Amino acid sequence: MEPSFDWNTVFLQCKEKVNALVRPLLKTLKDPQPDLGRGAGGDQMKTVDLAAEKAIVEVLLQHGVSFTLVSEESGIKEYGSQAKDCYVTVDPIDGTTNLVRGLPFYCSSIAVSQKPVLSDVHAAMVTDMFHGDTYTAIKGRGSFRDGEKIVTSAVSSLDDAVVGLDLNTYKVKELAPQLSELIQNTKHIRHFGANALELCFVADGLTDAFVDIRGKLRTTDVAAGFLILKEAGGLLSTPKGEAVDVKLDPQQTVTFVASGNKEIHEAILNLLKPK
Amino acid sequence: MEPSFDWNTVFLQCKEKVNALVRPLLKTLKDPQPDLGRGAGGDQMKTVDLAAEKAIVEVLLQHGVSFTLVSEESGIKEYGSQAKDCYVTVDPIDGTTNLVRGLPFYCSSIAVSQKPVLSDVHAAMVTDMFHGDTYTAIKGRGSFRDGEKIVTSAVSSLDDAVVGLDLNTYKVKELAPQLSELIQNTKHIRHFGANALELCFVADGLTDAFVDIRGKLRTTDVAAGFLILKEAGGLLSTPKGEAVDVKLDPQQTVTFVASGNKEIHEAILNLLKPK
Repeated sequence: MEPSFDWNTVFLQCKEKVNALVRPLLKTLKDPQPDLGRGAGGDQMKTVDLAAEKAIVEVLLQHGVSFTLVSEESGIKEYGSQAKDCYVTVDPIDGTTNLVRGLPFYCSSIAVSQKPVLSDVHAAMVTDMFHGDTYTAIKGRGSFRDGEKIVTSAVSSLDDAVVGLDLNTYKVKELAPQLSELIQNTKHIRHFGANALELCFVADGLTDAFVDIRGKLRTTDVAAGFLILKEAGGLLSTPKGEAVDVKLDPQQTVTFVASGNKEIHEAILNLLKPK
Repeated sequence: MEPSFDWNTVFLQCKEKVNALVRPLLKTLKDPQPDLGRGAGGDQMKTVDLAAEKAIVEVLLQHGVSFTLVSEESGIKEYGSQAKDCYVTVDPIDGTTNLVRGLPFYCSSIAVSQKPVLSDVHAAMVTDMFHGDTYTAIKGRGSFRDGEKIVTSAVSSLDDAVVGLDLNTYKVKELAPQLSELIQNTKHIRHFGANALELCFVADGLTDAFVDIRGKLRTTDVAAGFLILKEAGGLLSTPKGEAVDVKLDPQQTVTFVASGNKEIHEAILNLLKPK
């Protein structure tokens, strides 16, 4: 695409279309169900994930974008004659479990790059579908929440910090020594259950870091969140402090520490060092 | 108080008054601050906690209630000539850190009993101050969200369950063997950071259990949430399976497993057994 192409307009149309699809479903989910209380219907959700992805593809095609779709749902697909010039990495609904259960925390995300590589992402959107906040970033131009510039926090001590931590893995015992060290030294640990949105919370200064060292999260989940974090002034590295640069591929996983500032980042890397 | 006394009306007035106090502050907190991004101002919050408590006391006095206040903020205080006949346990703002940082999970809670004992609580309210949902319960009459009856979930396997877990303790290494066992066997672990509200999420079937075995949470934080959970059909016990029955006192702490149903409760107790 031309460098002047207006990705933000496309993102906002994608957001509207995905919301329009998901909103009627939320109404159904909110009605109490006799057996399961509020929130049920996992099968419905797979359908919604795919429908949301289709909605995003349609908006892109309407804008004349030729692209390669990189999606957790449907793998890699080419659209148009110049598909290799533009990669669109999509996670139509992140936090599906929350959505299905009625927990108010899930998002949709889109990342655009010229090559299928994380470091090459140059435009991104993550939209908090329950609360309606939309985060966007264009490389070199900063990050925004609903058009307002955002910056990461300056909280420099883990004694005061709020740190997101994804613990959901069968390997937790293996990781327990490192994780315990981090938890013991951090006053406020959280996990809301939608990792892309939790990266945006770090970008927006609502939390100070987000850590996922499970080796289980896919790059498709966080490609957009990473750009939004970096453009807001945040830092991103592997738990060993190396650059996170991986392929954008539905099978590719990633481990990372994402932080609002250098002090918190170094404090966390230090605690995660294998003892 | 007379058994016919209308606690729900009092609760709703308390909620309105606390919200009216906190809302203007939220607006200030939402404005980006030069150093800390969105969300700052811990000192302001201590003032708000006390002001919210004062608002609740005022509503009770307007309704002619004579009572003993049990509060984390200001200890035990008697109001009126029959203060020993009615105990009102208050946590004016639970999830203060979330509120200060702009994270959308915090609540206010009130529990009423004739004696200062947890098992004696007969009326309770927890209000989700960000989303506006209000949970109430009267002993023997069920639990309600904004007047609609709620029930706990029937999810019976930890493979499908969403379980809240508070890990925020310096003793995490001591607890790591038990906690790791639970985390490893549960697909979806969450921590939203406002324990009373997380108990209501279990009551409302949004999650399947909430576990806090730190020995750090105060009874004032969860007195209301416990009644709402039990009246919605949930179970509550110590990690060893014993009844949780403690004094309502600002210094009294509690450890517990709260679950939506018997199957999940037993599965969790089993995993928490010291090996």
